[in-house]
Amino acid sequence: MSGNIFGTLFQVVTFGESHGPALGCVVDGCPAGLPLAREDIDRELSRRKGNCGEASTSRNENDTCEILSGLFEGKTLGTPIAILIRNKDARPEDYDNLKDVYRPGHADWPWEAKYGFRDHRGGGRTSARETTGRVAAGAIAKVFLASHGIEIRAWTQEAAGIAAPFEGDRDFSLDEIENNALKMPNRACAELAMEKIEKLKAEGDSAGCIISCLARNLPPGLGEPVFNKLDARIAGAMLSLGAAKGVEFGAGFAAARGKGSELNDSLEPNGTQSHGLWKTNNAGGVLGGISTGADLSFRVAFKPVPSIAKRQETINRQGEKTGLLIRGRHDTCVAPRAVPVVEAMCALVLADFILLRQSATL
Amino acid sequence: MSGNIFGTLFQVVTFGESHGPALGCVVDGCPAGLPLAREDIDRELSRRKGNCGEASTSRNENDTCEILSGLFEGKTLGTPIAILIRNKDARPEDYDNLKDVYRPGHADWPWEAKYGFRDHRGGGRTSARETTGRVAAGAIAKVFLASHGIEIRAWTQEAAGIAAPFEGDRDFSLDEIENNALKMPNRACAELAMEKIEKLKAEGDSAGCIISCLARNLPPGLGEPVFNKLDARIAGAMLSLGAAKGVEFGAGFAAARGKGSELNDSLEPNGTQSHGLWKTNNAGGVLGGISTGADLSFRVAFKPVPSIAKRQETINRQGEKTGLLIRGRHDTCVAPRAVPVVEAMCALVLADFILLRQSATL
Amino acid sequence: MSGNIFGTLFQVVTFGESHGPALGCVVDGCPAGLPLAREDIDRELSRRKGNCGEASTSRNENDTCEILSGLFEGKTLGTPIAILIRNKDARPEDYDNLKDVYRPGHADWPWEAKYGFRDHRGGGRTSARETTGRVAAGAIAKVFLASHGIEIRAWTQEAAGIAAPFEGDRDFSLDEIENNALKMPNRACAELAMEKIEKLKAEGDSAGCIISCLARNLPPGLGEPVFNKLDARIAGAMLSLGAAKGVEFGAGFAAARGKGSELNDSLEPNGTQSHGLWKTNNAGGVLGGISTGADLSFRVAFKPVPSIAKRQETINRQGEKTGLLIRGRHDTCVAPRAVPVVEAMCALVLADFILLRQSATL
Amino acid sequence: MSGNIFGTLFQVVTFGESHGPALGCVVDGCPAGLPLAREDIDRELSRRKGNCGEASTSRNENDTCEILSGLFEGKTLGTPIAILIRNKDARPEDYDNLKDVYRPGHADWPWEAKYGFRDHRGGGRTSARETTGRVAAGAIAKVFLASHGIEIRAWTQEAAGIAAPFEGDRDFSLDEIENNALKMPNRACAELAMEKIEKLKAEGDSAGCIISCLARNLPPGLGEPVFNKLDARIAGAMLSLGAAKGVEFGAGFAAARGKGSELNDSLEPNGTQSHGLWKTNNAGGVLGGISTGADLSFRVAFKPVPSIAKRQETINRQGEKTGLLIRGRHDTCVAPRAVPVVEAMCALVLADFILLRQSATL
Repeated sequence: MSGNIFGTLFQVVTFGESHGPALGCVVDGCPAGLPLAREDIDRELSRRKGNCGEASTSRNENDTCEILSGLFEGKTLGTPIAILIRNKDARPEDYDNLKDVYRPGHADWPWEAKYGFRDHRGGGRTSARETTGRVAAGAIAKVFLASHGIEIRAWTQEAAGIAAPFEGDRDFSLDEIENNALKMPNRACAELAMEKIEKLKAEGDSAGCIISCLARNLPPGLGEPVFNKLDARIAGAMLSLGAAKGVEFGAGFAAARGKGSELNDSLEPNGTQSHGLWKTNNAGGVLGGISTGADLSFRVAFKPVPSIAKRQETINRQGEKTGLLIRGRHDTCVAPRAVPVVEAMCALVLADFILLRQSATL
Repeated sequence: MSGNIFGTLFQVVTFGESHGPALGCVVDGCPAGLPLAREDIDRELSRRKGNCGEASTSRNENDTCEILSGLFEGKTLGTPIAILIRNKDARPEDYDNLKDVYRPGHADWPWEAKYGFRDHRGGGRTSARETTGRVAAGAIAKVFLASHGIEIRAWTQEAAGIAAPFEGDRDFSLDEIENNALKMPNRACAELAMEKIEKLKAEGDSAGCIISCLARNLPPGLGEPVFNKLDARIAGAMLSLGAAKGVEFGAGFAAARGKGSELNDSLEPNGTQSHGLWKTNNAGGVLGGISTGADLSFRVAFKPVPSIAKRQETINRQGEKTGLLIRGRHDTCVAPRAVPVVEAMCALVLADFILLRQSATL
Repeated sequence: MSGNIFGTLFQVVTFGESHGPALGCVVDGCPAGLPLAREDIDRELSRRKGNCGEASTSRNENDTCEILSGLFEGKTLGTPIAILIRNKDARPEDYDNLKDVYRPGHADWPWEAKYGFRDHRGGGRTSARETTGRVAAGAIAKVFLASHGIEIRAWTQEAAGIAAPFEGDRDFSLDEIENNALKMPNRACAELAMEKIEKLKAEGDSAGCIISCLARNLPPGLGEPVFNKLDARIAGAMLSLGAAKGVEFGAGFAAARGKGSELNDSLEPNGTQSHGLWKTNNAGGVLGGISTGADLSFRVAFKPVPSIAKRQETINRQGEKTGLLIRGRHDTCVAPRAVPVVEAMCALVLADFILLRQSATL
Repeated sequence: MSGNIFGTLFQVVTFGESHGPALGCVVDGCPAGLPLAREDIDRELSRRKGNCGEASTSRNENDTCEILSGLFEGKTLGTPIAILIRNKDARPEDYDNLKDVYRPGHADWPWEAKYGFRDHRGGGRTSARETTGRVAAGAIAKVFLASHGIEIRAWTQEAAGIAAPFEGDRDFSLDEIENNALKMPNRACAELAMEKIEKLKAEGDSAGCIISCLARNLPPGLGEPVFNKLDARIAGAMLSLGAAKGVEFGAGFAAARGKGSELNDSLEPNGTQSHGLWKTNNAGGVLGGISTGADLSFRVAFKPVPSIAKRQETINRQGEKTGLLIRGRHDTCVAPRAVPVVEAMCALVLADFILLRQSATL
């Protein structure tokens, strides 16, 4: 109900502003007895900080966490797991010139319209830094899902208009993803995209991207019809990311242009690991809001980073026209850092449904 | 939460199977004192039944409702409003041949994997008929929103690959929408699309579509960061529709291919009705998950109706390969009937946020 | 949440005003595959109507229900189960004189302060008739619990100041409960209490009562610490009943006056059916909010029925002093009708926890 | 739905084990613009530690907090407020002998039955130390309520069988409460009770108590019928406290023995501060689950502290009979420390309803 709590049984609350003392999360509902270590969380935080000099932020986000509760002798207790991540390398003074103006493409003005005032230091809680708590919580969800054999993998499908091959294509490689700075499944594409991003950066501009995500080895039957469908929850989770502008499952928007005879996934007797009992997976692993046993597959569209280095027009608190030049440290494209964030949100949804599904039958 | 309850303060539960005795909903949390009549609901139910002979279902869905509670002397009491819609023209025998097989592109198999058994008569609650309860609830939300001056309009943006002009284009007409069977904002496009749909129908095939939706006169400040964002909730609501495969806001997937300098919406001193204080509305009326005062604007992609008249391959309960020819009465394309359904879900989300926003400030 | 939805996984919404067209409920989250019949519900509705001429209401509440959804071939589908109960024998004209005055001891004035206007016909939804929907939902919960071997039994422990023997006493008899009009576990006490109630009725007065409830054969481990404890949820459920003024578990208020050495329940190796592994059950079957394996045992205090036949002082809508003589048909004491209502609410809580407990461990 | 999150709009999650690194809470939904300082929280934490040498714990609980998020320039941002309290003076080794046995009257055995294993160090999260996070969150709720003019006062009504005068009695003094170690509203009673508690302590035994609570200056109209009633939520909040065994409102259990003509609260034209428009307040400030404008008034019964210094019988993990002598530092009676805890939970419920009530009318 308030905006910062997510989930039904596997629940998480995140907290923290970009330039406040700390960020973090509390995970409530993680089953007892799960082996968990601080390293499980730090590993994902490290993936979130990005690793490409130019494509990524220049704020130093070498985040490490402290586990405040919920663990005993290396295993979860069934009590809330609180995670603390101290903010380092904060430079609130970089944002002094934003105190009285509203940045184009940002939530500055709507936030103030809603709450009456705002934290202008890097956007406060509307900053992408807010996702740190999500990644920490998602790391726990991933460990829980791994104990059920479920794996989640995301990558940059497209960045600055350069598209990587799709899963199943000959040139697509899951192994390549973590090897290049943009986390693309094809090295040549990654290099091309990086070039384009650096050119945009040099122009003081920014780029959008599309992140693909895959959840493998899902049991059939996840998802709660009708409003709490698996894809409904995933869609809500993805659009809860600040820069996300769209989401699609399986054939997605292309399905709107196709024919039933081509798009219907048929069942066949002998299943496969990735498709379950289905000959094709145009559904993206979900029918009627319930997982089909095929891989869950979806894509999320992110707009270009709104903080650009070009002079922009806007208004100030007095409602007067004014020019604005944004300083501070900013990414040019949310890829590759959005990759672990998308994985984290997907993991939180799936962990919730794993717990929920047990109540479907007697 | 179980899957059939939606919302936080303006809440709805829907019930009913396609060929059971009745469908309906209970709306809880609608404020007291709202003038409401049965006609407000029947009008939307009538829009849902479709009005194009060929594009629409041939099941007779002349639904009318009974208001069971929550009203006194023509006004809402602040108590739950229960709506009952009796199922008429049910022909469960049409589905006898589906008892032991799983339809391609439908949720038959996943449902049975989850719940152990299923209602094979028209898909039970996975049928599009389930949306009847949503439309009834949405009608109440619309009356509530109208009391705040908010209007919601949806239309068929694209059907069977034929795209209508976009809002703002010279050939786009809101007035045209309710004048043609497909609810397209341009008559010529509607005729072209209808031709194509009838051709597909004749071939025993089906078509997908894209529905656009607009909410006008929204106050700024709707939406609860970070997980309960306005767009997150709308996205979840849209993907809770059975055949939906994607959703996008404002510039949507195209934003992933653009540049920040082109896509950033700037603020300017003198607002307009449709854009608020913003020069452009690439954001689709939502930034940081909060309404901006510009029109909320999004699109939903629907896959082709999976019930086609062609022979398909599938498996039966014994896991053996078998052929299937689907009988029964089915639409060829979810447009135009998805139009009031999309509006209804949008209304339910907005009504919830209208109530929620009052708690943002002291 | 709005106020008319209860539960987390086994959820119920109730609807209906005392003199509106109908009452009912929707149960969402009942697992699939449970054999259920209309008779299971009508039986509990029949218990709710009371059976003692003088102690009970004189409104004819021979309620029977219609199951609108959620069943297929005699078993639950895992979809919402909607139950409809038509209001019969309504006499709204009995309440005309209440239109402009506020009844002492009733919620008339607070309701109007909250909602701006009210349904004066028998109190609308503040009437005890509102519990009809709860009893219908509770009947489903009871069937579900019975499939887990759990049984719930409530009785009138005390009425009009006459106390029945406690469970475990020689003169206490579970078998007697359904044999006397007041549902007391001892016939002599029941007769004494009934005499006293009839005397009060003759005087135009009313009486309070205490209802005891027992849940037997509960598995240990039900309840979710810390806020969602088993006793916390039961307490909330009981105080949600209009006339309830208190609840206590096990030794209850007497525990506040005892010593730890006397009240601590010790564990011993060989368990019993009613006490589990515990030598005594001063805890009432719950420690730290978690069921102990001993019988859950609690009592609920109900105030006298506020509708009395004596002339009372009050104010009218203009805020002026006025006298009031309440007409209409009213019980003198909420016992025995509160007995199945307490059972129903207890069943709804326990059904929820049965579903929730599966998520505690991996 | 997991157990550690409380509230609908004004929400709180608490975390932390008795002998883990830290405890704390996250408050989500506190409106923006509320002036808040660390001292507001530390003051309540200090009240919680108790101040009577003998009646209180000997563990050093000089807790102070750190505010990790949600504040900017001394005011709340409308974002989550995370509070961190480090555990000091932990002596987990005191509990080594509890590793394999289950303490009588404690949740050790049920916890292990539920979660498979447990934190034996002082009971982990079942320790009364868990209430630290509640008190911190409640402190924020109190500041919010104070901005609405609402004040909450609790006191020890009865301890070790010694009852203080009731509110309204000549010998009752609100001013006295914070002046004596037991927080009783009468000094002589406090001394008597303290004597009795010390005697019990010397015997290795423990005592129960009753805490009274009053909320003054409540607006009428708080509470959401029918399941989310004001008293239902308060009752649930109180029974969520580990040692609570009962709760009653207004006349409470005594109402069950009274007559309607005596207990009905009548309305009269000119209101008073404490009673609103009501001549009496037997209802305890709530009718039909809605606040009446009179003071909210309720009492909570707490059992004796189960950790006593006498040798007790129990079983070990192998199910064998064994003797147990509990070491560690323990209170003899939960009063006076329960006083600020009861206030905190009451504040959390009321803050929630203050936010919720705005949605009752158009």
